[in-house]
Amino acid sequence: MSIKDVFNLSEGTEVTVRGWIYRKRELRDKIFLVVRDGSGIVQAVINKSDQDLSSIASKLNVESSLVLTGVIKREPRAPGGAEIHVKSINWYYAGYAFPINEDAAKADSEYLFDVRHLWIRSRKMWAVLRVRHTVFGAIHEFFRSRGYYEVQGPMFVSAAVEGGSTLFPVKYFDREDVYLTQSSQFYLEVLIYALERVYTIAPSFRAEPSRTRRHLTEFWHAEAEEAWLQFDGLLNLLEDLITYIVNKVLEERQDELKLLNRDAKVLENVKPPFQRVSYDEAINILQSKGVGIKWGDDIGADEERVLTLQFDKPILLHHFPEQIKAFYHRNDPSRPETTLSVDVLAPEGYGEIVGGGERIYDYEELISKIKRFGLKPEDYDWYLDLRRYGSVPHAGFGLGIDRLIMWICGLEHIRDAVPFPRDIRRIKP
Amino acid sequence: MSIKDVFNLSEGTEVTVRGWIYRKRELRDKIFLVVRDGSGIVQAVINKSDQDLSSIASKLNVESSLVLTGVIKREPRAPGGAEIHVKSINWYYAGYAFPINEDAAKADSEYLFDVRHLWIRSRKMWAVLRVRHTVFGAIHEFFRSRGYYEVQGPMFVSAAVEGGSTLFPVKYFDREDVYLTQSSQFYLEVLIYALERVYTIAPSFRAEPSRTRRHLTEFWHAEAEEAWLQFDGLLNLLEDLITYIVNKVLEERQDELKLLNRDAKVLENVKPPFQRVSYDEAINILQSKGVGIKWGDDIGADEERVLTLQFDKPILLHHFPEQIKAFYHRNDPSRPETTLSVDVLAPEGYGEIVGGGERIYDYEELISKIKRFGLKPEDYDWYLDLRRYGSVPHAGFGLGIDRLIMWICGLEHIRDAVPFPRDIRRIKP
Repeated sequence: MSIKDVFNLSEGTEVTVRGWIYRKRELRDKIFLVVRDGSGIVQAVINKSDQDLSSIASKLNVESSLVLTGVIKREPRAPGGAEIHVKSINWYYAGYAFPINEDAAKADSEYLFDVRHLWIRSRKMWAVLRVRHTVFGAIHEFFRSRGYYEVQGPMFVSAAVEGGSTLFPVKYFDREDVYLTQSSQFYLEVLIYALERVYTIAPSFRAEPSRTRRHLTEFWHAEAEEAWLQFDGLLNLLEDLITYIVNKVLEERQDELKLLNRDAKVLENVKPPFQRVSYDEAINILQSKGVGIKWGDDIGADEERVLTLQFDKPILLHHFPEQIKAFYHRNDPSRPETTLSVDVLAPEGYGEIVGGGERIYDYEELISKIKRFGLKPEDYDWYLDLRRYGSVPHAGFGLGIDRLIMWICGLEHIRDAVPFPRDIRRIKP
Repeated sequence: MSIKDVFNLSEGTEVTVRGWIYRKRELRDKIFLVVRDGSGIVQAVINKSDQDLSSIASKLNVESSLVLTGVIKREPRAPGGAEIHVKSINWYYAGYAFPINEDAAKADSEYLFDVRHLWIRSRKMWAVLRVRHTVFGAIHEFFRSRGYYEVQGPMFVSAAVEGGSTLFPVKYFDREDVYLTQSSQFYLEVLIYALERVYTIAPSFRAEPSRTRRHLTEFWHAEAEEAWLQFDGLLNLLEDLITYIVNKVLEERQDELKLLNRDAKVLENVKPPFQRVSYDEAINILQSKGVGIKWGDDIGADEERVLTLQFDKPILLHHFPEQIKAFYHRNDPSRPETTLSVDVLAPEGYGEIVGGGERIYDYEELISKIKRFGLKPEDYDWYLDLRRYGSVPHAGFGLGIDRLIMWICGLEHIRDAVPFPRDIRRIKP
């Protein structure tokens, strides 16, 4: 049975649980084993008067696996308020002494990443992984319940969506012109012509040469694209999606948030409407805070941090100037130097977790903007076809799932939100 | 409103629908537009006596987009039994004449792949994509309802799971030792120590140099790994999973299967128990059919085809000899020249869609098999750690989702099961 279910049973019930030894402590007359499985932890007690049992228990190291049978006893001092008095150990694998060493972790910030395949068993990673499971599930539920179709773009591509400098080249047989996708957006734009509303959850790749607390070279990307969707609808959709995900975590993962010392109050505050701040207003706010920035400048991580600390909710930062957003963003007809674009900034300094907007749907407008940006229309041949044949107004966005999890869990670094993080220096384990 | 909902409304109701012109036909006094959206198709009728409307309708090409308002009228000859008598066209985008040409498709088998970004709008692709959506959703539902945690392995790896010859190298900054993952199995094996039961749906990559009807260079892989799971449990799990997926498609996608001319009877036959055939029995069957094969030979696509045609259900083909399965497969203690391994073969000649089995959990056994296979233990350092520290019996499998969809839809070629297929020659669109 799952360890979490032990606590629902009455005293005296005999149970069999299996898992790994999380902690071990020996007294004069007893051995305490805290055993963990995928569902939780429970304390097991072995009486040293039982010599067979106690000789097995002595051999077991932290992280040894075992299957044990025993009787439930209430014990207010044990985690969860009950413990198991062990009658038999049916199977065990003692293994070597577990090598993770807290001193080594303090001395070398890379150490826990070097042993990630073992550190993954820590309570902290366990909690993050369970939140992660809930976040992925919530994204699927949200889109599916609203009639979006799940689709998959290719990972191998021949053109950049987000600019050529962060493309990873692949040695694709004898070819030199193949890269890993930076975003499935263009492919989702293809698919709206068949299915109208589509979403994907898939890896995207960016060759980020610097190590920052919020970049990885591969990340999981939830992207959606919707025919006929316009800007106001997009803002509402983003509020609803993020609220849905955060609520789901609050419903299912209170214990994990506690374990992570995450203040759930901050998350309970996430409800529509989010704070809507135009780029113009953002520049004013930043200038009033003494940030040296002028209209037309990019709003980077540092500026996002200042902005998000002004509000206690996520921010919908909208209407970026044309020159700081990719060519496919539709310019606002009523103010053409700005675009119908939006970033969602997570509060508490976390910053950008979503980028989105209306896409240009008019063929001539798209051609002319591609040229204005110094790009070559022939590099976008099939993308332009989407505007040649039956184009429709549409909008969409990309959500960095790992960043969202980093914020929800209140983590310092995105590497802690991902089981096997990858950056310029790390590709192992 | 969605087009599929039009057919539930009573005659005389005014509706507004939006979509693309799927077919257009002009009579002396009327113009018929068959309009499609993500949900279905409906016939719209324009009376030529309305000159404004009919001049718009004349301009519109196949695949032009539009928003129209009109009144529902029963019409047994129209698809779905009703049509819309158009009162106004509120928005349209005529665009260029749609270029897809059925003669070109017949002359050049690559043509429909060259224009995949437009061909995706065809009824056939629409149907496949909707089945695909249901299959992905069913996999998530199945695992989540049984308490498996969704996890993600990395795409960038430094070692081969399935042998080095099909690895794709990536130019990873200045490094030469980075590849794309062939399977997330080893990472799922790490994660069972935290979460016990895990699954992933993610891309895997294989540098397959030949074009076959069932290989792609990137494919979507559903993989699961479970602590304590043993061989019989694995076989039952596979039967349950595949039955669940197929039933879900039968429940939700009857119209799409019809559109694909897929005989649903074949799918209705998919229920546990599947046909369980040992490798030994398979060799006997093949020899009795005149196939030149002997014990110890691999069972390839041609042999799988012969086998699957003997039965009207999926086959669980089990107990492969050690030498034709990867090193991590656990040998059967009661017959050590064979392994506790299983492939699931889809019927009707489709062949392998799943490979799985028990994994070696004993450290010494794994080291000795790695050496017996001529591999270097130091290449598997962290994988071996999983056996050094608290190893547990476990089993798992990988399901090729695109192959499963190919079979469910009864497609000739795996390229038709995927929106943007990739093989040695194709990386565009």
